[in-house]
Amino acid sequence: MTVKQLSIPELVADCVELGIPGIGLWRDPVQQYGLDATAKLVRDAGLTVTTLCRGGFFTAIEPAERAAALDDNRRAIDEAATLGTDTLVLVSGGLPAGSKDLHGARERIADALSELGPYAEQHGVRLAIEPLHPMFASDRCVVSTLAQALDIAERFPAHQVGVTVDTYHIWWDDTAPAQIARAGASGRIHTFQLADWITPLPEGVLNGRGQIGDGAIDMREWRRYVEDAGYTGPIEVELFNDDLWARDGHELLKETADRFVEHAIR
Amino acid sequence: MTVKQLSIPELVADCVELGIPGIGLWRDPVQQYGLDATAKLVRDAGLTVTTLCRGGFFTAIEPAERAAALDDNRRAIDEAATLGTDTLVLVSGGLPAGSKDLHGARERIADALSELGPYAEQHGVRLAIEPLHPMFASDRCVVSTLAQALDIAERFPAHQVGVTVDTYHIWWDDTAPAQIARAGASGRIHTFQLADWITPLPEGVLNGRGQIGDGAIDMREWRRYVEDAGYTGPIEVELFNDDLWARDGHELLKETADRFVEHAIR
Repeated sequence: MTVKQLSIPELVADCVELGIPGIGLWRDPVQQYGLDATAKLVRDAGLTVTTLCRGGFFTAIEPAERAAALDDNRRAIDEAATLGTDTLVLVSGGLPAGSKDLHGARERIADALSELGPYAEQHGVRLAIEPLHPMFASDRCVVSTLAQALDIAERFPAHQVGVTVDTYHIWWDDTAPAQIARAGASGRIHTFQLADWITPLPEGVLNGRGQIGDGAIDMREWRRYVEDAGYTGPIEVELFNDDLWARDGHELLKETADRFVEHAIR
Repeated sequence: MTVKQLSIPELVADCVELGIPGIGLWRDPVQQYGLDATAKLVRDAGLTVTTLCRGGFFTAIEPAERAAALDDNRRAIDEAATLGTDTLVLVSGGLPAGSKDLHGARERIADALSELGPYAEQHGVRLAIEPLHPMFASDRCVVSTLAQALDIAERFPAHQVGVTVDTYHIWWDDTAPAQIARAGASGRIHTFQLADWITPLPEGVLNGRGQIGDGAIDMREWRRYVEDAGYTGPIEVELFNDDLWARDGHELLKETADRFVEHAIR
C-alpha cells in the first residue's frame, strides 16, 4: 500500500532490483491482479509475502452482517495461505452506527476470533490483531492499545492469534514497551510495521502516515523493543499518504528503502 | 470557548438567563475585555468562574524559552486568582522541533511544576494537568493519558497539582475509569469537562469536538466515574468546532445547555 501507484508486477520487479526480500500485500490489488497470478509472480521472483492486509471488521451486531464478516475473513485466510504468508493482519472495526459501547464491540471481536482462530490454524495462518491509534476508535478499530489487543489475543493460542506492532499507532504510549515484552514472551508479535508520525493530520486522518525519518518517532528505539522481546521476523514499512501516492512510485519505493536503512537499521 | 462568537458580556447575560451557574474562561478573550472588568462583570452577575484555560507549554528545551513559559504561567495564575477561580487548566506542550524524546519532554513538565506549584498555592490556585488525546502528542501535549498525568501530578501536593478529566481525550481508554478512581482517591480531579467524539476529524484535528449527544461517548457513564471517585465540582462543556462557531452563539449556548441536561444529567 506504501506504493499503491505501482502495479503488482512493477512492485515485484522493483523489490528484486532494490534487494527488498519480502512484501506485505493488500487484498484489493491482489484480487485485481489475480490471486494465483500474484502468488506465482512473487514466488518466481524469490520474494516472500510477509503479511496479507487485512481481515477484521468484527464489530457488527446484526447476525447477517456478522456472518458476512466471518465469511469474508475465511476468504482472507484462504488468500493468505495461497500467497504463502503465515500472517493475516486484522483491523478489528469501529463502533456500529449509534452505539457507544466500546466494551461490547471488543467482546464481539473475541467472539469472531473463537470461530476464525481454528480455521486459520488449519490453513497455517496466524491472525494479528492490530491496535490502531485511538483517533480511529469510533470509526475503524475499537482496539486502541497493545494491552487491549493482547487482552483479546491471549484468550487464544499464540499460533492462532497475536498482534501487529505498528510504530504509528503506539508511539505515544509509554506503556507500549512493556506490552511489547508481554507480547514477545508468549510469541505473539506476528508482525512489526513502521511509519512515522507527522502533523498536521489531514482531514479524516487516515492518509497522514509519514515517511520514515520525517516525523516524531525514533524507529531504532522501537526496533530495539521488539527485538529485545525476541522478534526476529520481517520489518514492514506501511505508509498511507496522499502526498507520497502522488509521486512516482519507483522513486518513492527507492526512497522508502533508503530511509528504512538510514533510520531503522544503521 | 464553546461559544467564542459571543462577547464576554453576552456570555454572562446568556448564562444568567439560562440558569448556567458558572463559566470556564479562556485567557485571550478575558485579556481582550479586560481582566478586572471581566472579574467584576462575572462576580456582579452572581456567576462563578469554574476554571481558567490555559497555562502550560512547558516542554521547550531552550533556557530563555523555558523562562518565558514560566513567566507566562505565573501571569496565568495571577489572572486565575483575580477571576476568583481556584483552577488553572494546563496544556503541557508538544515535542520541541526535531525532538523525538517524549520521556524528556514529560520530565520538563514536572520540572516546571516544581517551580509553579508553590506559586500557585500562594495564590489559592490549583494546577490541572490535562491529558490530551494521543493524536495531539507531538504538537500540543505529550501527556496523553490520565495515568501519565497522574504520574506527574502525584509528585506534588494535590492542592498544587491535579488533573483535568475531559471525556473527549480519554473516552477510548479502558484504563481511564481506574485512573479516575486513582485521581479521586488523592483529591486530584480538579475539573471535569465534556465534549463528544465525532468523525470525520477535520484537517489538523483541533476543531473537531462534537456537541454533546452527537457522538460516540456515553456522558452519563463518565459522569458516574468521576462522581464515584468523589468529584462534586462543576461539569464544564468545552467544544471547539468550526461548524458550531459559524452558528448564532446565543442559540448554540441554549442548545448546549439543553444537550447537557439531556445527555449528562437526566
